[in-house]
Amino acid sequence: MESLEENGFQDQVQSIVTRRFRRLCFHLQPPLESASSGDLEVLSCACRAKVVVNRDRLSDYMRGKHRDVQQRVYDYFNSRPELQTPLEISKDEHRELCMRQLMGFVRESGIRPFRYALEDPGKYFAILEAVGGVDMSLGIKMGVQFSLWGGSVLNLGTKKHRDKYFEGIDNIEYPGCFAMTELHHGSNVQGLQTVATFDPLKDEFIIDTPNDGAIKWWIGNAAVHGKFATVFAKLILPTHDAKGISDMGIHAFIVPIRDMKTHKTLPGVEVHDCGHKVGLNGVDNGALRFRSVRIPRDNLLNRFGDVSRDGKYTSGLPSISKRFAATLGELVGGRVGLAYSSVGVLKISVIIAVRYSLLRQQFGPPKQPEISILDYQSQQHKLMPMLASAYAYHFATLHLLDKYSEMKRTHDEQLIGDVHTLSAGLKAYVTSYTAKSLSICREACGGHGYAAVNRFGSLRNDHDIFQTFEGDNTVLLQQVAGYLLKQYQEKFQGGTLTVTWNYLRVSMNSYLSQPNPVTARWEGEDHLRDPKFQLDTFRYRTSRLLQSVAVRLRKHSKTLGNFGAWNRCLNHLLTLAESHIESVILEKFIDAVQSSPDSSSRAALKLACDLYALDRIWNDIGTYRNVDYVAPNKAKAIHKLSEYLSFQVKTVAKELVDAFDIPDYVTRAPIGMQATEDAYSQYTQFAGFEN
Amino acid sequence: MESLEENGFQDQVQSIVTRRFRRLCFHLQPPLESASSGDLEVLSCACRAKVVVNRDRLSDYMRGKHRDVQQRVYDYFNSRPELQTPLEISKDEHRELCMRQLMGFVRESGIRPFRYALEDPGKYFAILEAVGGVDMSLGIKMGVQFSLWGGSVLNLGTKKHRDKYFEGIDNIEYPGCFAMTELHHGSNVQGLQTVATFDPLKDEFIIDTPNDGAIKWWIGNAAVHGKFATVFAKLILPTHDAKGISDMGIHAFIVPIRDMKTHKTLPGVEVHDCGHKVGLNGVDNGALRFRSVRIPRDNLLNRFGDVSRDGKYTSGLPSISKRFAATLGELVGGRVGLAYSSVGVLKISVIIAVRYSLLRQQFGPPKQPEISILDYQSQQHKLMPMLASAYAYHFATLHLLDKYSEMKRTHDEQLIGDVHTLSAGLKAYVTSYTAKSLSICREACGGHGYAAVNRFGSLRNDHDIFQTFEGDNTVLLQQVAGYLLKQYQEKFQGGTLTVTWNYLRVSMNSYLSQPNPVTARWEGEDHLRDPKFQLDTFRYRTSRLLQSVAVRLRKHSKTLGNFGAWNRCLNHLLTLAESHIESVILEKFIDAVQSSPDSSSRAALKLACDLYALDRIWNDIGTYRNVDYVAPNKAKAIHKLSEYLSFQVKTVAKELVDAFDIPDYVTRAPIGMQATEDAYSQYTQFAGFEN
Repeated sequence: MESLEENGFQDQVQSIVTRRFRRLCFHLQPPLESASSGDLEVLSCACRAKVVVNRDRLSDYMRGKHRDVQQRVYDYFNSRPELQTPLEISKDEHRELCMRQLMGFVRESGIRPFRYALEDPGKYFAILEAVGGVDMSLGIKMGVQFSLWGGSVLNLGTKKHRDKYFEGIDNIEYPGCFAMTELHHGSNVQGLQTVATFDPLKDEFIIDTPNDGAIKWWIGNAAVHGKFATVFAKLILPTHDAKGISDMGIHAFIVPIRDMKTHKTLPGVEVHDCGHKVGLNGVDNGALRFRSVRIPRDNLLNRFGDVSRDGKYTSGLPSISKRFAATLGELVGGRVGLAYSSVGVLKISVIIAVRYSLLRQQFGPPKQPEISILDYQSQQHKLMPMLASAYAYHFATLHLLDKYSEMKRTHDEQLIGDVHTLSAGLKAYVTSYTAKSLSICREACGGHGYAAVNRFGSLRNDHDIFQTFEGDNTVLLQQVAGYLLKQYQEKFQGGTLTVTWNYLRVSMNSYLSQPNPVTARWEGEDHLRDPKFQLDTFRYRTSRLLQSVAVRLRKHSKTLGNFGAWNRCLNHLLTLAESHIESVILEKFIDAVQSSPDSSSRAALKLACDLYALDRIWNDIGTYRNVDYVAPNKAKAIHKLSEYLSFQVKTVAKELVDAFDIPDYVTRAPIGMQATEDAYSQYTQFAGFEN
Repeated sequence: MESLEENGFQDQVQSIVTRRFRRLCFHLQPPLESASSGDLEVLSCACRAKVVVNRDRLSDYMRGKHRDVQQRVYDYFNSRPELQTPLEISKDEHRELCMRQLMGFVRESGIRPFRYALEDPGKYFAILEAVGGVDMSLGIKMGVQFSLWGGSVLNLGTKKHRDKYFEGIDNIEYPGCFAMTELHHGSNVQGLQTVATFDPLKDEFIIDTPNDGAIKWWIGNAAVHGKFATVFAKLILPTHDAKGISDMGIHAFIVPIRDMKTHKTLPGVEVHDCGHKVGLNGVDNGALRFRSVRIPRDNLLNRFGDVSRDGKYTSGLPSISKRFAATLGELVGGRVGLAYSSVGVLKISVIIAVRYSLLRQQFGPPKQPEISILDYQSQQHKLMPMLASAYAYHFATLHLLDKYSEMKRTHDEQLIGDVHTLSAGLKAYVTSYTAKSLSICREACGGHGYAAVNRFGSLRNDHDIFQTFEGDNTVLLQQVAGYLLKQYQEKFQGGTLTVTWNYLRVSMNSYLSQPNPVTARWEGEDHLRDPKFQLDTFRYRTSRLLQSVAVRLRKHSKTLGNFGAWNRCLNHLLTLAESHIESVILEKFIDAVQSSPDSSSRAALKLACDLYALDRIWNDIGTYRNVDYVAPNKAKAIHKLSEYLSFQVKTVAKELVDAFDIPDYVTRAPIGMQATEDAYSQYTQFAGFEN
């Protein structure tokens, strides 16, 4: 008869033995190997019980608070088959259809997106994402109308503008454009050349395109539908000094471009069609040249700077650069929307690729049935880290939405800086990733991925420009790097750091202290799957990149000047920015795993999160090895574990994609239907065969 | 007065001092830094004199022997503006235009591609590449007619087939299809389910589609134009044993599918349209279902196996698998053509992106003119290794063409194996690289890269499927890995190795001997730019990957069986295959540099070759660091030097892309014109502005 103590003691011994044995197994026989090696299997099964996912509970957790309005968007379009975009459609027809879709939606669905843009930005972006799922051209057309044209009026104008234009923008009686980009200037907005000269005699501004390089280019809604344009131009005021004029910097002006009744182009406005694009051909991008186009003084969007009747300039902000920053700062919402919508595209793409890979069978062991292509390690390697990333970005962009809404509510200074940088970084990082993933998914689905009906082509073509508009990704990442450097500098000057960059404040030094020679060799699964190890590793990289680039910049700026030094370190700076964004994403993912209310969802999310973390570490293993942050065997263990986690995630891949909860009539690809048994017959029917 | 000896001695001392000083500089001040640091500059300029490229001489060297026929292709289409494919065209119109282009070209240009397919494969592929530059759909349409349909008749049939079909294929009176792929089976050709049953009573084969999964799918030329199809099916012969039938494996049969006069689909043949694709919409892919379609016995393409009047099977090859290998072996030309054409696409894409990046200016040092975006380190990083790779692949695929032609001439056994593997590897490696590059180029050209007229969209959409057809890239790379393993095994069994794999035979052991602790630390520029170092490093990786995967496979096959072990090591095997192909490419590039007849071309090619080599080594630096093949500081030096080489290649980038010698009316993108000063005005004219 054993006493309880004895029992407890025995349990303890037993658990020590088991743990040791497990650790030993892990060294002798890394996880990948142990799954099918007899006795060890029992143990490895014990510590890695098959994750069972309750799809509905996970889905509830994922959905977020705006899933209802997204369902209403889907329902509206599902009930209007005549508003579906066909697979093949000419540019002109697509533009007309896109306008009909937008009008129909805004006027019939009972959802008025423009109102939410002010009251509830989170809801507005959720609508935008859902609309983009119907047809990305429609999402962008809507974004041009409400975020860009409407957003410029609301955010850069004052009450008089809101009173005059709100209704017309909201109900699309005033379709409008956002005329910022010029033929010669996209990223360098301060280099724009269009001029708006104040004429005190007539109390008007005169808008002019001084040369062909200043033609407004790529302007959405301009080629066909727009009645107005918010035109960005250098404000020129007459002065009484020798120079005669003064350049007050870039300002925004409302310029009517077409007659409200006849829809004819107004005098002095020359509009041409930018023509066929790689994608988004439902959006009518045009080019605008202005020849002495006169607009009333009231058309200056005067929130950050105004001109009085007698031509005096007033502003609450002290300098051109401050006003410029404030103006551009108001446009950050576009990036938030793109980052969020890009995750939506990634989800659709991953859903289709994963479902098809489960359905498709090819080859197999001799004289046995063929196996699904997702059973191949190579296919898991292509798709499982991508599935994990879709989850990671989902949580990160939800976080960004929350921060953005909070910023809009509070106008908190620090929050403005954080949201600006976070939206720039996430927009750049996520859209680049999604763009690459669309190509990988197409290729992973072989020939059937090449059928237009299976979506990858149009998704890729439409999404492609996400990497460029609302800020070229390479430029945006530099803004992130610049912000990090500013924070780093302030840290050394004893200033406070803003919240997003907490980890730099708290522990930059500890991250940069010599890597512990013991932990550099730890290679147990428990250690590698410990969020602390993962976060430390990500942050160590960022901290190190930040510190080293600061040193290099200081050194080079002596001989090359600031601009030359920045360019000399540009690749380094971009890596730093990406590294930082990856850290933020991981942090939010870990939070989301821990906040998950039920254990089955938590286990599934934990798998995905570990895969996201280890896959990224492995992708940059050279960096870690170069500074001996991980020893060679640890690097090997990380690689093996990430392959094993891909295999594990595969076992719940169907549930994980189902939990995105995107209806079949939105994903639409016959090879990506939820009930995979129907996929092939859907497909043969589509081609015209009777089933 | 100094004696000559003294003079010589002083020179020698001087050169030792200079060399030492240079080496010292390199350590203290790696090349990237030295360019602008006063005194050192003189020295670094001396050792890195600006490379001056004679574009014409380089171009002559690059062109190869078939440039004249390519010019004739370009001239023909340039003289026939009505055969230009417009930017926007519907699927149906594109298909008709594509057929008109093909007919016009073959009947009017004086070039008869099909004849060269036999007599001079190198010339044939050169024509194919040029035609693909006009419109990739046309290139593929031509490939379907001559390489696939025509190629199957010539290579799998016998004299009777050639006599009967050659003329009609050559002059396109017999447009035909290559009906191999089925809805359920692409890569696994042995899994095809279509059956061809011999009926001895009527001396006919009966072709049948037993289930929907066996519908022939993606068959080019089938939806609209094809009159015939080479149908791959299991040959079923009646036997006198209990089973009653015998499955002889996959064979190819000529099946008429449309009436020669009325063009109506023949009885028992059901054809449907595979519909809109991501790209290549000028090619009419269709789906074919056969219901007891009878064809004469003579329609069996009987080169590798025949059926006699009384239903007896005869073959010079002993087994189903040998016959299958021989049949598929004849189709290797398609891969050669794709690898070669893919390099053509890469060149066009790089030309456009580089020229635009030289033209486009954005930002710059304060109060100074803006700088060209190719002056940014990030843009160099995106495009310069790509430009170097285009050169690398150019020479590698020319080498493949030569080997292929030699194989066709000699039918040498070893050569057949080599060409098979090399074509599989290069096709997979190059098409994957080009596909990624097209996306990078689009993004690198920002908004203007998104205009359809600037080509990236259609090039990407059309080229995308190169990764899939003629063998899925993931499957092809496995064939390379399999072949390497076979060679490895034979090596240990004392067998001889074939020529392509020379380096494995010669020095596998030396590559695998412990990395020399001294060379692992060498970081001088001379060393890093030494072809021997570069080749050793590439081959070391391949050798190591080969040896380690062989060990892993042996271990896993005991518990998982061969198939399971292969799958468990799949990522490893794919890396091995890529690593090997990279080694072969580097080897050919180094040869090409050394064979270059003039020193200016040699210097330019050497720059590109070094960049190709070091960029690849840096991309996989983790692997080298993990085994301490390179020390941390050497890794750093490799990184710095590859950034510096990107900068150096940039200085001759214009000449390097010009030397590809592709006329403006072939590249066509307004932003990619050779005379960059016209680019913007071409572009505004295109949009409708008067200049």
